[in-house]
Amino acid sequence: MLLSGGLDSVTVLAIARAAGYDVHALSFRYGQRHVIELSCAARQAERFGACAHEIVDLSHLGPLVAPATALVEGSTLSVPKGRDVRDEGEIPITYVPARNALFLSYALAWAESLGARDLWIGVNALDYSGYPDCRPAFIEAFAAMANLATRVGVEGDGDAVRVQTPLIDLPKAGIIARGVELGVDYGDTVSCYDPVAGVDGRPLACGACDSCQLRRKGFEDAGVDDPTRYVGDSIARR
Amino acid sequence: MLLSGGLDSVTVLAIARAAGYDVHALSFRYGQRHVIELSCAARQAERFGACAHEIVDLSHLGPLVAPATALVEGSTLSVPKGRDVRDEGEIPITYVPARNALFLSYALAWAESLGARDLWIGVNALDYSGYPDCRPAFIEAFAAMANLATRVGVEGDGDAVRVQTPLIDLPKAGIIARGVELGVDYGDTVSCYDPVAGVDGRPLACGACDSCQLRRKGFEDAGVDDPTRYVGDSIARR
Repeated sequence: MLLSGGLDSVTVLAIARAAGYDVHALSFRYGQRHVIELSCAARQAERFGACAHEIVDLSHLGPLVAPATALVEGSTLSVPKGRDVRDEGEIPITYVPARNALFLSYALAWAESLGARDLWIGVNALDYSGYPDCRPAFIEAFAAMANLATRVGVEGDGDAVRVQTPLIDLPKAGIIARGVELGVDYGDTVSCYDPVAGVDGRPLACGACDSCQLRRKGFEDAGVDDPTRYVGDSIARR
Repeated sequence: MLLSGGLDSVTVLAIARAAGYDVHALSFRYGQRHVIELSCAARQAERFGACAHEIVDLSHLGPLVAPATALVEGSTLSVPKGRDVRDEGEIPITYVPARNALFLSYALAWAESLGARDLWIGVNALDYSGYPDCRPAFIEAFAAMANLATRVGVEGDGDAVRVQTPLIDLPKAGIIARGVELGVDYGDTVSCYDPVAGVDGRPLACGACDSCQLRRKGFEDAGVDDPTRYVGDSIARR
């Protein structure tokens, strides 16, 4: 399971555990500005009883893709703030080239070694930023490729590897509602693309990037108190 | 371009350069027993005028896949020696789970950042070990996935990313003949799955693993002197 430490992937973790799956969680340090999400991933993996959690060092990737994405440290591009996230058809510069293909392929390698057949990923194609690698067509193509890339493609039936995307058709509010039912502590997830560390070391979200906007609106629509700590919130409020 | 430092990938490098492509070469340190191949890759990249050569540290991968492949350090499985490489239908234990999917996905990320559209890989499906991820069906599925995973899948035409496999239909002897025409120094390539370093630091091939057998027969069939240094060759012969 790809576990970033964000709202979506932690919900997927809760869903898979509730469905009785043994979870091997996989996170990546690839130079993302929001690397603080990894500590959330580690705590959530433990909280939900993942049988393993690996954090893979892909720090070599950041400099290679920095010219094409604002999401990594060292990029001269800035994370857009206050943008209309409903701009259809435009892929924002926070898109990281081929990230889901790469992360799912890594998960596929580990899964084949474990004898696991289900790859879980928290993509959703409704309240999202328009990334190409979050769309159902990509997920289907990846599954087809995965079944040809591995032993099952020669030795077994062609549908043996499945990509599980339980959030793909859910609005953000529906994801949050499902997670709340399952006991997810969303206060210990990071969605912000450009967070800063608070005085206690825990993240403060910017509140203005695409991801913060989608997340904040999700809590509003779900009628759930938003536990996110934003930059500029007064200490008193917490 | 995926450049392992082996016979096939170095031939692909020569072919792409002869065809006028600017080559960004990509190698991986993933815990392979034959990590000495990377020094060949670096020399060959320079020799053929690659504009860049990156060696990616994926050393985290080795321990994760070690239970399922003999090819990485730390695996308790042994590289088979003296096996009949013509055993059809059996995938040998030197297969590394999802390796080509993972390496091509990494190349895809870099390519998208560069604005490159051609991914080159030295797979061939004739004189090969039966790995699932060397077959044309896998390559086609990967290309389809790649075109959905990236910006071109939304913004451009669906065939914009191409996976170039100039060796896919060639026998090993044909690969060698083509490389010799193009000036490849096969003495500075490593195919052996289990080489040792000679006293001069350059590799000695075992001569008995699948890859050594395919390579040796390739030179014989091509009528080309085999420049490979094998374990047990007398110094005098060199």
